[in-house]
Amino acid sequence: MQTVRIDLGERSYPILIGSGLLDRPAVVAQAVAARDVLVVTNRTVGPLYLDALLRGLEGKRAGSVALEDGEQFKTLDTLSRVLDAMVAQRFNRDACIVALGGGVVGDVAGFAAACYQRGIDFVQVPTTLLAQVDSSVGGKTGVNHPCGKNLIGAFHQPRAVVSDLATLATLPARELRSGLAEVVKYGLIHDADFLAWIESNVAPLLALDLDALTHAVRRSCEIKARIVASDEREQGQRALLNLGHTFGHAIENAMGYGEWLHGEAVGVGMLLAADLSSRLGWIAPADVERVRTLLERIGLPTRAPVIGAQRALELMGMDKKVLAGRLRLVLLRRLGEGVVSGDFAPAALEATLGAHFEARAA
Amino acid sequence: MQTVRIDLGERSYPILIGSGLLDRPAVVAQAVAARDVLVVTNRTVGPLYLDALLRGLEGKRAGSVALEDGEQFKTLDTLSRVLDAMVAQRFNRDACIVALGGGVVGDVAGFAAACYQRGIDFVQVPTTLLAQVDSSVGGKTGVNHPCGKNLIGAFHQPRAVVSDLATLATLPARELRSGLAEVVKYGLIHDADFLAWIESNVAPLLALDLDALTHAVRRSCEIKARIVASDEREQGQRALLNLGHTFGHAIENAMGYGEWLHGEAVGVGMLLAADLSSRLGWIAPADVERVRTLLERIGLPTRAPVIGAQRALELMGMDKKVLAGRLRLVLLRRLGEGVVSGDFAPAALEATLGAHFEARAA
Repeated sequence: MQTVRIDLGERSYPILIGSGLLDRPAVVAQAVAARDVLVVTNRTVGPLYLDALLRGLEGKRAGSVALEDGEQFKTLDTLSRVLDAMVAQRFNRDACIVALGGGVVGDVAGFAAACYQRGIDFVQVPTTLLAQVDSSVGGKTGVNHPCGKNLIGAFHQPRAVVSDLATLATLPARELRSGLAEVVKYGLIHDADFLAWIESNVAPLLALDLDALTHAVRRSCEIKARIVASDEREQGQRALLNLGHTFGHAIENAMGYGEWLHGEAVGVGMLLAADLSSRLGWIAPADVERVRTLLERIGLPTRAPVIGAQRALELMGMDKKVLAGRLRLVLLRRLGEGVVSGDFAPAALEATLGAHFEARAA
Repeated sequence: MQTVRIDLGERSYPILIGSGLLDRPAVVAQAVAARDVLVVTNRTVGPLYLDALLRGLEGKRAGSVALEDGEQFKTLDTLSRVLDAMVAQRFNRDACIVALGGGVVGDVAGFAAACYQRGIDFVQVPTTLLAQVDSSVGGKTGVNHPCGKNLIGAFHQPRAVVSDLATLATLPARELRSGLAEVVKYGLIHDADFLAWIESNVAPLLALDLDALTHAVRRSCEIKARIVASDEREQGQRALLNLGHTFGHAIENAMGYGEWLHGEAVGVGMLLAADLSSRLGWIAPADVERVRTLLERIGLPTRAPVIGAQRALELMGMDKKVLAGRLRLVLLRRLGEGVVSGDFAPAALEATLGAHFEARAA
């Protein structure tokens, strides 16, 4: 088992990474200190891993609630269901919510922990690669609004993250690939060596080779940890983690959440960010092709849906990372160095959107 | 205009207290720095003061939303309405929510500010005495759950509180009295001299004498400021502010929120806390009578509704101030000194509940 520490003063916490952690009750028991525990999971993950998790909670007062599976259930109504379960158990401020599942479960459960009696303890047990490398780390929680993703939420750090890599064995291949998009993101924004390592390890990663997975999850968490520690509440640097996300949210929003997986939309979004960075002369066209090739080898889509450039722009304008009415995007100064910038010609952005979101001749 | 400062490091903020502040646009403009502003009010207060407030926001992009008036509307559904209004205005993270109204408006609007895009600015313009001396100060925000008050919420400090005492001229007398219950609370838990001052100034306070009101609001805020600064997230001392509230919540819950006003329930709750403190030998029976007499002179109820001792206890058990399954209450070591304690014989509590919540011979 390896440990990455998120350094946030009194809100610091460990990320435990290893295979078979859920089968080691001592690991679970140590991560969850509270006596009263509500496990929030979904109907797909629950049948697979809930029993193992509950064995680690033996001797505690533990309840569970299984949400519907899917981004479309990341709503205030679902939040309400979790809060109802806490009230039904008569749990008080000393209770802990444990999220067992992917990003949706973690975001909803974490927001419930942030709100219940104005804030209680929270532990993440992510069971998707996406959640293990991204959403379980950093304290962002929330639900979607019909008009935009994650518009309602809170910053609420977990007490611990338990990433059992063995759970990836039951993850659909498409979701594994989607998670790898976020791994690529860390290479692009922060670490050219890591990017090259990913390029050399696509096959072992897709084959769930444990050494490769461990390195990918560990290095991703280290990079996220460093960025989050420098900017917990996203005043500046932390926005780098949104590479590809503003474009990606437009895709998810236009297609309906759940139609495109988050990582798929972010993958195409990173390609658009690279395209725009290239039009600005920051990176070479060959760098854009390098990104495209890596995404293709992973098995991720590299063509945006034809939603129209104007519609895409509108949807990006609704994105919450709009600063003082001016669109800011995460772009690439070079491969391995992201930069948050509103300093680009609107025409360059329009060219990128036109090239990707409009119908093309075959 | 007088100013009380809440000292919370980078979350510090001023409480501005005076008569006619809403008619001074410069005061409003200084308190609300943002360019985009949503004013949240209700259908009773809006027609009286919204226009004046909006004059102070001239030159900004300001929208407003009027909630239904009443504690029964302090729900997740109402929160959702405020968030919808923010999205409809396409407001981003730089926007500010201004709460114009009493405690319900402030709690819902503050929680919306805490949640919208994971936290935006927030200014309180309380128009009830209860909100001016209590709920607008200290950063507690939230909504009710069908099973309990304020079970869902966040700590989110405002940027400023603007307390215009002139707004109390339109406050129903019953609500003024209800607010005075919280003023009495500050005397009971922290300041025997202030308690004596209140006893000497019941008539001027009820007549809305400006000097008396200013002193009552200012001193209440000072005491709350000191307690909140020492314990922002209610780990210890801050619980003193809940004198009478655990008993009071049981009354509000049993009778249906809104039937008894919050201050009325808290007033009777303080009397029960005094009764129990007297049974423990901490204060004299004469002290209990002194509390009862003051509440009577203010025009507050001093008889609990006949809901049965057992039912009251159950409702208290659901209260969120239950610590590790053990009931803790705010009691009085003497008049002017509150203490948070779980250290009382259950029989003494039962005697207090029996004496107040059971039917009595005429």
